[in-house]
Amino acid sequence: MSELTPKDPDFETRVRGSFAKQGLMETLGASIARVLPGQVDIVLPPSPAVSQQHGFVHAGAVASIADSAAGYAALTLMPPGAGVLTAEFKINLLAPAVGDSIVARGKVIRAGRTLTLAQTDVFAGREGQEKLIAMLTATLMTIEGRAGVGD
Amino acid sequence: MSELTPKDPDFETRVRGSFAKQGLMETLGASIARVLPGQVDIVLPPSPAVSQQHGFVHAGAVASIADSAAGYAALTLMPPGAGVLTAEFKINLLAPAVGDSIVARGKVIRAGRTLTLAQTDVFAGREGQEKLIAMLTATLMTIEGRAGVGD
Amino acid sequence: MSELTPKDPDFETRVRGSFAKQGLMETLGASIARVLPGQVDIVLPPSPAVSQQHGFVHAGAVASIADSAAGYAALTLMPPGAGVLTAEFKINLLAPAVGDSIVARGKVIRAGRTLTLAQTDVFAGREGQEKLIAMLTATLMTIEGRAGVGD
Amino acid sequence: MSELTPKDPDFETRVRGSFAKQGLMETLGASIARVLPGQVDIVLPPSPAVSQQHGFVHAGAVASIADSAAGYAALTLMPPGAGVLTAEFKINLLAPAVGDSIVARGKVIRAGRTLTLAQTDVFAGREGQEKLIAMLTATLMTIEGRAGVGD
Repeated sequence: MSELTPKDPDFETRVRGSFAKQGLMETLGASIARVLPGQVDIVLPPSPAVSQQHGFVHAGAVASIADSAAGYAALTLMPPGAGVLTAEFKINLLAPAVGDSIVARGKVIRAGRTLTLAQTDVFAGREGQEKLIAMLTATLMTIEGRAGVGD
Repeated sequence: MSELTPKDPDFETRVRGSFAKQGLMETLGASIARVLPGQVDIVLPPSPAVSQQHGFVHAGAVASIADSAAGYAALTLMPPGAGVLTAEFKINLLAPAVGDSIVARGKVIRAGRTLTLAQTDVFAGREGQEKLIAMLTATLMTIEGRAGVGD
Repeated sequence: MSELTPKDPDFETRVRGSFAKQGLMETLGASIARVLPGQVDIVLPPSPAVSQQHGFVHAGAVASIADSAAGYAALTLMPPGAGVLTAEFKINLLAPAVGDSIVARGKVIRAGRTLTLAQTDVFAGREGQEKLIAMLTATLMTIEGRAGVGD
Repeated sequence: MSELTPKDPDFETRVRGSFAKQGLMETLGASIARVLPGQVDIVLPPSPAVSQQHGFVHAGAVASIADSAAGYAALTLMPPGAGVLTAEFKINLLAPAVGDSIVARGKVIRAGRTLTLAQTDVFAGREGQEKLIAMLTATLMTIEGRAGVGD
């Protein structure tokens, strides 16, 4: 769809640069993988540092990478200079987050001028198999002309 | 309401013990404050380690403490031996999470046998004033008789 | 709070006039009750015409009045000429919707320039008692300058 | 996936019979179209009877058919005798609901023993084109052994 054509040819550099400034992602040990127009993947290795009380990856850690994946998927389609903020998200947790790695795959469902809807499917990988463990939908807001809120 | 009467007299010890096992909370620097029947508060000091790209506290970090506050508010009312898991949550982000401290105040709206609805209001404190910055609603599931899922 | 001061002194007339144009409310048999700054109540009498398969009021009918109550609570605080549209809502259904009447009480949590968060608590009344049966949170958008979208 | 194999060979008859008992669907003028394992479509013709104040189909009417589509998609996979209830849903509204017809396409994302996650995409059809206007995710609960709650 034409709405998935980036308005900023440097979208990938911009998204990777912004991700590098998210202190939380470094603290969690998350890294950014694929960056395509309207699609961003973020990977989190499970560890005790991101766990909840039963040893699974904490729903908050899953939500953190899923929110970032949704937000950056939205940012790939925003005009140069615009910043992205999350207005709301909902996440359904389908199975315990356990495995060798957790991958959040964010994609834009609809990019509007002010609001973008993105969806992130989160998978746990184990022994070469992927299992859907969570699904997030997020409303992202395009912020233009506000000091300190770029990318 | 009678549904806010704990079925487990040791609910506070149990909640604090379970919180201590959440590796993510330690990683974020969050601590548990008030624990009452149907109510739990969790505090997070803002820092670059939990930030997003504009320097605000990341929506995922806000959601993490809000989810834990909701989950533990629910656990205060669950029978001994039961474990709590989040089935879903939605969070609306109302203002940038900046300030001296972020406080997530979770409370039970309705405790059912299988599902509990809890709400967490998140406030940013600055110079003695509190401002509402986010609101989360979560569905928590009571898990009984599953190995490895207690508290 | 000052943010609950209506920008339009005729907010009540405006809300009641807009409600009267919602064909769905008439079809469902719903009526608007209290209209205050930031608060609107809508009442629905249970009947087979709004039921689901077990005879309870359908979740969609509950959501319909809860969404309208949230939207009109938001509209009470919007400037003259602006229109309101729902961007998203989530509803948690806590108990079967049965009783003598269903009342949706909407209130504004935070009114921003573009986005407003409102919450609606839905109660079933029976023999003079009210029971909380559902809770909705909605993001409402202020629309200005779009032809056909006023109030 | 094997989890999409119906446990009840009469799932289609059962779903259509249950839909016929939903008074709200008749009141709205909605009809059930396709019924497949894990997938149900519901169609609503736009009319003043289901409108909001600007003449679009009301978000509550869109949510009503989307919720029913999600619930019946879930019911296709439930064991004989079980009933389905909605625990929660969230809907994002992407564009005004206008057109010749509104179609809600529900599908199961994951069917668990107690909870099922379903997603409904809602399209507006106009002049042979379909446009995505809303997206709903719902948590459905399998109810077994409760009098009055079958199908």
